[in-house]
Amino acid sequence: MKRITIYDVAKEADVSLATVSRVINDSNVVREDTRIRVQEAIEKLGYKPNAIAQGLALSKTTTISIVMSEKLFSYNSKILNGLMDVAKIYNYNIMLHTTSKGISKMQDVIESIVKSRVDGVILFNDNFSEEELEVLHLYQIPMVVVGSKIEDKKDGNVGNVYIDFEKLAYEFVNSYFEKGITDISLVEDKLNLSMMHQLRQGVEKAYQEKGMKFEKYITYDDTYRSSYDFLTEYFETTKPSELVITFRDSQAIAFINACHEAGIKVPEETQVVAILDDKYLRMVRPTISSFNFPDYDMGAIAMRLLTKMLVNDEAVKENKDIEIGYTYIQRQTTRLD
Amino acid sequence: MKRITIYDVAKEADVSLATVSRVINDSNVVREDTRIRVQEAIEKLGYKPNAIAQGLALSKTTTISIVMSEKLFSYNSKILNGLMDVAKIYNYNIMLHTTSKGISKMQDVIESIVKSRVDGVILFNDNFSEEELEVLHLYQIPMVVVGSKIEDKKDGNVGNVYIDFEKLAYEFVNSYFEKGITDISLVEDKLNLSMMHQLRQGVEKAYQEKGMKFEKYITYDDTYRSSYDFLTEYFETTKPSELVITFRDSQAIAFINACHEAGIKVPEETQVVAILDDKYLRMVRPTISSFNFPDYDMGAIAMRLLTKMLVNDEAVKENKDIEIGYTYIQRQTTRLD
Repeated sequence: MKRITIYDVAKEADVSLATVSRVINDSNVVREDTRIRVQEAIEKLGYKPNAIAQGLALSKTTTISIVMSEKLFSYNSKILNGLMDVAKIYNYNIMLHTTSKGISKMQDVIESIVKSRVDGVILFNDNFSEEELEVLHLYQIPMVVVGSKIEDKKDGNVGNVYIDFEKLAYEFVNSYFEKGITDISLVEDKLNLSMMHQLRQGVEKAYQEKGMKFEKYITYDDTYRSSYDFLTEYFETTKPSELVITFRDSQAIAFINACHEAGIKVPEETQVVAILDDKYLRMVRPTISSFNFPDYDMGAIAMRLLTKMLVNDEAVKENKDIEIGYTYIQRQTTRLD
Repeated sequence: MKRITIYDVAKEADVSLATVSRVINDSNVVREDTRIRVQEAIEKLGYKPNAIAQGLALSKTTTISIVMSEKLFSYNSKILNGLMDVAKIYNYNIMLHTTSKGISKMQDVIESIVKSRVDGVILFNDNFSEEELEVLHLYQIPMVVVGSKIEDKKDGNVGNVYIDFEKLAYEFVNSYFEKGITDISLVEDKLNLSMMHQLRQGVEKAYQEKGMKFEKYITYDDTYRSSYDFLTEYFETTKPSELVITFRDSQAIAFINACHEAGIKVPEETQVVAILDDKYLRMVRPTISSFNFPDYDMGAIAMRLLTKMLVNDEAVKENKDIEIGYTYIQRQTTRLD
């Protein structure tokens, strides 16, 4: 059903928008017969001005908040482009909210979203907790979470456009088991803990099914410089696993550079894959294998889903969860055999 | 002078915010003596509710629009972080507007900014024209342009936080002249045409002063893949200049990779520098020399300047142009001698 707007009321009562606005706001400067005509039109059409609509009657547009971690701007830029392009098509305003360590927590962001009375929210699923998500639920703001799968989703009012990282890790590790390779490390990415959690579950599940235990979840300060320094020292005494899985490009690049310095041959002695594809993986030598996700499409699909939720589209009432596929990209750091 | 708000009026008249709002909006449900008390408070304090403030009296916060090209998200992420952090300190809402080829032009963005009645604008200086800038002037929206220097700035109401790319190129080229190197190429970056224009002017000026003419402004499809393909073919018949200046990291990486494939030694046979520093320049081999700008600070300074312009701070009336320094970072692709 089309939402009745102040424009419809003005047309029905044959008055200007300003006049309708004055009647709604109980202004004294409206003639009594005009006031009655407008009120009849409001009743006939079932128009329901709310507190916000009263103030913004003439300028109200749909506003969407995008919430993401500051650290992840550069990695999520294509998803953001997809979101922005669809938002433009629908003439939405975009409010940007960022979270960053020490300066602003999800709590503050949520408060700011509620205060600014946005119509919908797009959340990047990196690091927020279930409780934080639930606070937004309380306010009944339609919301789409983009990135990884929300686990134990209780509320049907939240959409989710996601990559199934658990399945990805499970299938990838199994493909290496088939090659006879079982010495596998998974390197933690502190910027993407929810993704890491799911990857780890997938790896553990694959090991469990073969009656083995997964023990090489590697965690250290994961910036490029400290990764590189750590690995360079580490390789003086220890050999890397046969297969090393990292999440971000910089972790994989630190790994191949440290291997190079230590004289460890990639992919002959150790293979490495970065989960998140990035243009730089093609630019370094050796080029680094990874998984391709349709980032731009993910953003576009997430915003489209939210537009449907905002108008209570029947189609999205049943299913608000959209899984996005991925493809493996074989480059020089992994072997086919 | 502190701006008088509806809060001050409520305090002065000893009534609730809602009551003040009702009086301003000519509601009938206010008792006559209360109405008079509120109106006296309004007159005493000189409070001036405007059309927007009336509607939003209880929720109005300052809103800033950030305008940038979609293509540049990943490159400007640190500037964006600086902008966002300062905006948070001042409790500003941030509206994000992006420009992208084909989908939304500056024209549309300007219209959307004006319609949404933002209080101020931060513009990334990449690709907009003087005329577009002037349209925003017309609407008297305080504005800070961040990035490169605005040339022929007519309006005193526009702030500019910038790197002087002309000076940078002029000084850098002169330092190579002193080493006896005059065969220099400058590679165009189509994403940053205003920066390129200024770099080119600096190089040309240096050549001119030595009685020479600068002729190697190189322009081709500048994505990584096409740069790499172009250069690989080019190097079959031609040698690169003694010094090659690129703007973005991916152009410099394409160059060193193509050199490697062609057996051209860097920095022995050709040297290369990328103007814009990026973490990936440290990760590739050889590591690529560049210029470091305090990106995060640029963003923080730009937003701070805008906050001052919004309150008509005396200090910024005189000078709204802030030049940001840079430092040269010597890495493996350039020689010291």
